[in-house]
Amino acid sequence: MVIRLDDKFVKPFISEEEINAIAPEIEAAAKTLREGTGKGSDMRGWLNLPENYDRAEFARIKAAAAKIKKTSDVFIVIGIGGSYLGARAVVEFLGSSRYNQLRRGTPEIYFSGCNISGSDLEELLSICEGKDFCINVISKSGTTTEPAVAFRYFRALLEKKYGTDGARERIFVTTDKARGTLKQFSDEAGYETFVVPDDVGGRFSVLSAVGLLPIAVSGVDIDELMGGAADAMRVLSAEGIENNDAYKYAAIRNILYRKGKCVEILVGYEPYQQMFCEWWKQLMGESEGKDGKGLYPSSVIFSTDLHSLGQYIQSGKRTMFETVLSVENPDSNAELPYDSANIDGLNFLAGMKMSDVNKTAMNGTLLAHVDGGVPNVVIRLADRSTRSLGYMIYFFEFACAVSGYVLGVNPFDQPGVEAYKKNMFALLGKPGYEEMTEQLRARL
Amino acid sequence: MVIRLDDKFVKPFISEEEINAIAPEIEAAAKTLREGTGKGSDMRGWLNLPENYDRAEFARIKAAAAKIKKTSDVFIVIGIGGSYLGARAVVEFLGSSRYNQLRRGTPEIYFSGCNISGSDLEELLSICEGKDFCINVISKSGTTTEPAVAFRYFRALLEKKYGTDGARERIFVTTDKARGTLKQFSDEAGYETFVVPDDVGGRFSVLSAVGLLPIAVSGVDIDELMGGAADAMRVLSAEGIENNDAYKYAAIRNILYRKGKCVEILVGYEPYQQMFCEWWKQLMGESEGKDGKGLYPSSVIFSTDLHSLGQYIQSGKRTMFETVLSVENPDSNAELPYDSANIDGLNFLAGMKMSDVNKTAMNGTLLAHVDGGVPNVVIRLADRSTRSLGYMIYFFEFACAVSGYVLGVNPFDQPGVEAYKKNMFALLGKPGYEEMTEQLRARL
Repeated sequence: MVIRLDDKFVKPFISEEEINAIAPEIEAAAKTLREGTGKGSDMRGWLNLPENYDRAEFARIKAAAAKIKKTSDVFIVIGIGGSYLGARAVVEFLGSSRYNQLRRGTPEIYFSGCNISGSDLEELLSICEGKDFCINVISKSGTTTEPAVAFRYFRALLEKKYGTDGARERIFVTTDKARGTLKQFSDEAGYETFVVPDDVGGRFSVLSAVGLLPIAVSGVDIDELMGGAADAMRVLSAEGIENNDAYKYAAIRNILYRKGKCVEILVGYEPYQQMFCEWWKQLMGESEGKDGKGLYPSSVIFSTDLHSLGQYIQSGKRTMFETVLSVENPDSNAELPYDSANIDGLNFLAGMKMSDVNKTAMNGTLLAHVDGGVPNVVIRLADRSTRSLGYMIYFFEFACAVSGYVLGVNPFDQPGVEAYKKNMFALLGKPGYEEMTEQLRARL
Repeated sequence: MVIRLDDKFVKPFISEEEINAIAPEIEAAAKTLREGTGKGSDMRGWLNLPENYDRAEFARIKAAAAKIKKTSDVFIVIGIGGSYLGARAVVEFLGSSRYNQLRRGTPEIYFSGCNISGSDLEELLSICEGKDFCINVISKSGTTTEPAVAFRYFRALLEKKYGTDGARERIFVTTDKARGTLKQFSDEAGYETFVVPDDVGGRFSVLSAVGLLPIAVSGVDIDELMGGAADAMRVLSAEGIENNDAYKYAAIRNILYRKGKCVEILVGYEPYQQMFCEWWKQLMGESEGKDGKGLYPSSVIFSTDLHSLGQYIQSGKRTMFETVLSVENPDSNAELPYDSANIDGLNFLAGMKMSDVNKTAMNGTLLAHVDGGVPNVVIRLADRSTRSLGYMIYFFEFACAVSGYVLGVNPFDQPGVEAYKKNMFALLGKPGYEEMTEQLRARL
């Protein structure tokens, strides 16, 4: 089993009866999802994506990645939200949070267009100086402010450095298959384009071209990644909460929410998991945080943050539960060295694997936090392989969608994201927003 | 004014009467803090640190930093919690979250000993290969597991590479001034040592040798940093809530907490602020998260996370408020370029500074989130200078201590951090824990 949900450390807080009571809701929500009878049902393309994807485009992604690897020292990925988090999560989970310092034979990868920081942009432009680079701009419409600004800069830099013809070979565009100004412009300019599927929202798009091109450039085997997701798709097609760990996870989340928990903390024990936690936060927060409802998603990396938020989780206000990501099979064989000085008194551990010490820290923390009144769900992932990660991505996507329907929201829209954009455009004096402009300015 | 607290976007949620009602509590808490009559009063060394620090040690820190810069390509800082977050926050705030790729004339700086990850350790060991490096181990006792393990590895590597005599010149130890095995061993081995003050807890220690040595190695002017903190110390000595923005911040936090808010989100608008947010999370969470109380500290970087947690903050469960960090004077002059193609329709902004667009995104978001029912406190910081950062560090430390006393906790202890450690040692079979060991193992 690639993922096993361990509910041992939730049991002191949730009874068997509570699980049984919510099971019909979970199963009904899953049915709604599968049959497309719920809200947002036109955005369920991710559900079958691991099997039902465009093979020809997939081959083009691999070819483009090979070309980028061959011709570039640096690869700039331009996108925000779901056009950013998935790729970065996978690159770091399978590589490292220090990917750019440690990579061998693949380009440095930087993410731009995911903020409005001038200094951040200037840093990335300076990193490209004297280096060969390609860009991948990812935007369904082409008009989202953050990536649009970055695209203006990097396209100009490419054209200055390589000429219009040279730049054409170095610009890869992931956008709508037919509509939008970016698609039209790209076709006219002769850029290679990939598709943001119509029925896959940003936070569910990591296994489409949106995530796959940058992931492939980092050297990850995208067949394996899709294979893992396809495995999950099959396993999670099982009916009955007792046979389906995604159902169980959705059930536990909703039960704890109804009992008053308002924060869910995703817990990792390895620094390479940090951006995966960020991906998960978007997935959960954007899918469920609406209509005045939802669990607030947060994350920590232990043992680092046991010396930061650990105190709060152990003894603060009892408003949270933890979902702990445990990678069962270690990827490092580093051992605790013997030290004749034994300054730290740790010689009783000499020769023990660090991964075993880390696992023991996890077990000790599970027990401590349960004793402190914090329910702990443990997601046991087999290993740190590409295939297992593909599995886990699908697991969380699927569980999220089921959970959202149980919560009674449309898990596939994000109307709240428009609010700041509208205000920003009005305050910037965008044509068409004149009336709002004055109203808002008066409130500042 | 280096920091001005702007409460305009809190006013729809808190009345003048509520501020007036809590003011005596705030002023009493500040008095308790200043006079040392409250819990944990022996841990108030940070309160006068900006003026009352060891000048001779300060000079030694600068000399050591100069020596490290001269002899090292890489500097490994070994510490966890407060022995890690403060230095990293300052290095990144003033440099960049990409400091290691962008630094000029200073060593690469990596933080080790802040987790139990074998793969993380192996990465850092590989980064040191073929490079000259120094280490700074920071641990009051010398027995904290995470830094102790890293110290074993890096000390062995240094001794292998440079011999015992060579290694001696490359090991810098920040520890207790007299007690503890690390101090004793360091003196015997002839390592240069710096002091973790007895009366300054980890999360308040960034302006002691704990933070200052790594910060100085990164090229930051530590006189300016201390100077900024000393400025804050003077400004925040003002009595009366109407004259003291730290009092105001403590008041607003406690009022909102009592009205049912359980999450405080620190909001930045620049990627370089991310680790500062992490420092703040430890400061607030560890100081207040006890006795079943406290605000859960979280953080986001906008506009990045407007496309992630933004939906939740706009429309999810109304359990949070935001504290927005606004750097008033921009540090980048990058402008939005004109693009004849105007694919994105943004030419109406051509020639506008990105910092102004970013500020407008902030204003638009403030209004949107207030309309969504989220109180927003704005901390207006003059600029991104070293001096202003020193000011802000002291501002938050001081406000945190006052706030903690108003909450009715000891803001200077962290008893909950011991729980996982005890369990871990018991599960690891550490001598002396035998009885606990069996009990805990039976629960796994």
